[in-house]
Amino acid sequence: MENKVYVVGMGPGDAGLMCQRADETLKECDVIIGYTVYVDLLRDRYPGKEFLTTPMTQEAKRCRMAFEEARKGKAVGMVCSGDAGVYGMSGLILEIGEEYPEISVEVIPGITAALSGGAVLGAPLTHDFAVISLCDRLTPWETIESRLYHAASGDFSICIYNPASKGRPDHLKKACQILQRVLPGDRLCGMVENIGRDGEKTRLCTLKELENAEVNMFTTVFIGNSATKEMGGRMVTPRGYKI
Amino acid sequence: MENKVYVVGMGPGDAGLMCQRADETLKECDVIIGYTVYVDLLRDRYPGKEFLTTPMTQEAKRCRMAFEEARKGKAVGMVCSGDAGVYGMSGLILEIGEEYPEISVEVIPGITAALSGGAVLGAPLTHDFAVISLCDRLTPWETIESRLYHAASGDFSICIYNPASKGRPDHLKKACQILQRVLPGDRLCGMVENIGRDGEKTRLCTLKELENAEVNMFTTVFIGNSATKEMGGRMVTPRGYKI
Repeated sequence: MENKVYVVGMGPGDAGLMCQRADETLKECDVIIGYTVYVDLLRDRYPGKEFLTTPMTQEAKRCRMAFEEARKGKAVGMVCSGDAGVYGMSGLILEIGEEYPEISVEVIPGITAALSGGAVLGAPLTHDFAVISLCDRLTPWETIESRLYHAASGDFSICIYNPASKGRPDHLKKACQILQRVLPGDRLCGMVENIGRDGEKTRLCTLKELENAEVNMFTTVFIGNSATKEMGGRMVTPRGYKI
Repeated sequence: MENKVYVVGMGPGDAGLMCQRADETLKECDVIIGYTVYVDLLRDRYPGKEFLTTPMTQEAKRCRMAFEEARKGKAVGMVCSGDAGVYGMSGLILEIGEEYPEISVEVIPGITAALSGGAVLGAPLTHDFAVISLCDRLTPWETIESRLYHAASGDFSICIYNPASKGRPDHLKKACQILQRVLPGDRLCGMVENIGRDGEKTRLCTLKELENAEVNMFTTVFIGNSATKEMGGRMVTPRGYKI
């Protein structure tokens, strides 16, 4: 393959949920670069590759590393969990790519947690939905609050990424309180942890119960819209078809 | 495989953008059921299968067909373009599945147009986003208007599905006018037609220009958030990393 940077969405972790083009691309790459935790999931699947990692908060450095490797004539796969775009590295790669105009960039999509987690829970996102991250490392909390408020006001189903981390254990509680300015406390919600990986767990609960739910950085949270209901233990948002 | 209904997201059409579990599942199914246009894309890829189709507006009938085939002891793949959930059949299958409690249902996600189209355009959805369909066959137009308004008010990037069809050629124009109650006319927008298929086309333009853009049922439209910019011909929504 050409010396090029491929931004590759690897899906939730399970090889079966990676798209075939992503798999073929990583097989052809000389170097695979990513956040330590995700790259460790790939070492056995792509033997003989060079692996480079940087910890979280080193994203710009990781992108420059990718372009520097491509400059040496290598095909470089920059891997992202889920999709390459959704809270992924494709944006930063294209921004930093302005410094490396001779290196081309290709983005290969992947199954983001809204879709893989939705499939595990049933069908929470079959109608209009919003995706919101509660991580305030790069986004002012006021912006996150405003998005929660507007998503609830528009009767969107909502998928929440990064509901908690060590430094911000109470973000989900705060988010649920904002949502309850608009939504009833008995609104159906769902959670999935470790989607498609060992230790996969799901739970359905009300928005009120969600306030005190235990979540971590591997949990994806779903808030139903006004039509969402539980059917046989699954979370289902009808699209409105006449049955 | 068991007699079971598998709701399978087939991605945008290109085999390389289907996830491996979806491909393996369809290979094992006895019957593949779907909307005529999508099933025709699969006939050559899965030789020897029984294919059943119903036209659009026959979705409930299509779901009952799937359960009736499973009742005969077959493994049935109900295919959806993009994801199984996002405007897909997983919700209706789970609803109608209440009539067939002895048949189990498994949902296999796929790459929806927000992700595959986003990858073609660059990185429009790297931050919080909303997905809205302009199809008012099952949703009151007032609900769609309210969602457009709230998504714009929350400064979400917006991905629009079903921007037009023969019966509603002016929906995108009306949507752009609603968005401009909140957003400036020069907001960056993008369009992708026939994602991952023959005749793939992209265009970047302003929200004002989008009002009069030619779109069809195979076009996916992206509206940037306040930070979205054009970089080297691509649509990029920065997540906020310091470069």
